[in-house]
Amino acid sequence: MNKIYVVGIGPGAYEQMTVKAVRAIEMSQVIVGYTVYTDLLKKEFPDKDYRNTPMRQEVERCRMAYEEAAAGKKVAMVCSGDAGIYGMAGLMYEVGTEYPQVELEIIPGVTAALGGAAVLGAPLGHDCCMISLSDLLTPWEQIEKRIVAAALADFVICLYNPSSKKRSDYLQKACHLMLSYKGEDTVCGIVKNIAREGESMEILSLQELKDAKADMFSTVFIGNCKTRVIDGKMITPRGYQYERE
Amino acid sequence: MNKIYVVGIGPGAYEQMTVKAVRAIEMSQVIVGYTVYTDLLKKEFPDKDYRNTPMRQEVERCRMAYEEAAAGKKVAMVCSGDAGIYGMAGLMYEVGTEYPQVELEIIPGVTAALGGAAVLGAPLGHDCCMISLSDLLTPWEQIEKRIVAAALADFVICLYNPSSKKRSDYLQKACHLMLSYKGEDTVCGIVKNIAREGESMEILSLQELKDAKADMFSTVFIGNCKTRVIDGKMITPRGYQYERE
Repeated sequence: MNKIYVVGIGPGAYEQMTVKAVRAIEMSQVIVGYTVYTDLLKKEFPDKDYRNTPMRQEVERCRMAYEEAAAGKKVAMVCSGDAGIYGMAGLMYEVGTEYPQVELEIIPGVTAALGGAAVLGAPLGHDCCMISLSDLLTPWEQIEKRIVAAALADFVICLYNPSSKKRSDYLQKACHLMLSYKGEDTVCGIVKNIAREGESMEILSLQELKDAKADMFSTVFIGNCKTRVIDGKMITPRGYQYERE
Repeated sequence: MNKIYVVGIGPGAYEQMTVKAVRAIEMSQVIVGYTVYTDLLKKEFPDKDYRNTPMRQEVERCRMAYEEAAAGKKVAMVCSGDAGIYGMAGLMYEVGTEYPQVELEIIPGVTAALGGAAVLGAPLGHDCCMISLSDLLTPWEQIEKRIVAAALADFVICLYNPSSKKRSDYLQKACHLMLSYKGEDTVCGIVKNIAREGESMEILSLQELKDAKADMFSTVFIGNCKTRVIDGKMITPRGYQYERE
């Protein structure tokens, strides 16, 4: 049976791919994905047949992968970060009902929350949630509801897609909401271009985050009430009893 | 300066480690970790000096790593899944204030939520949260509050540490709570021994999950209101407009 690998390639650097993801790409002839991600792979895997569709043509991208696989090619559909978290795995299963002769294998990867957390220190040391601020596919009211719930229950919050040209004030709106339920000194962090050229990180308060600049290559972290800064890193304690000797 | 790698080794299989994690282990002389995780590594990296402490001796485990590094050894502290999500990265930074001469590098890994999701299909296709049901370090009231908030805001929920011998009814208690806010037909999944010998998965309703058996090697997923079963897999749609041609 023909098989498509749906591969989370991690945040960007080759070395943050899993061994399994590397092997899946190596075994594939055709690599399908959004241009930004396939460009990251071309350096390490130059001899593949890369196929792209623009943003917002996700269904077409999936069909392209299935058509290649149905024609006998070995295919990988690549996603940045993980294959499932805001990735293509779900839509691939939906479109897959049209191609019963093709099987899927999902290969998980380091999503931006994990990659970014490692740059900041250890912000995700306790219960956390991931929320995308993009309202392309989700009504803003639903996003607001989740932000409020997460703030009230003191989750560590990781925001995906915090901002874009068309949504330049969305992070600000989210911070306004959170400031009603969380202290303005809550420790926050922004990581840009995780594991890519130009990687940078900044630790700041929730009050400061409200006026900070983020873009579509940023991942934003809002701590819980116990998150603090240790040696310039953002740390959310798990709760172990620790006293300095 | 001496450096310790805090390494997320993924859920268990060698091939789910990142390339960076493999390189860090290869470069290290001493590998410190909980026995279950160091045993997973011994097969692939037999020539290392492995050091363990039992469960609940996490601070001692961190000090052990720092002492070795301070003595000039190349050290990796290993965590299952990710280094930060319920891992040791946070505590390592706390204990690290005693050892200013030692630097940390955090290497992220595939946490159980991602590894388990790939086995089930694509349950984490939309905003999600991770909650540990262990009340060793967190008051049960706080855990309940987060479960209720996550259920009300229709997050996909991933439960870590759903059960253990001493907490055999905790998953049942969590399901009871969620059944007040979510439909009894909500699609749920359990994955056991992710990427290890005896890996298994089961898809069931929230009503059925209430009476299901889970153990400390299980990860549990509760869908949002749009999660459904496609070809035997648990899928949470991202929201792309898809109509079968």
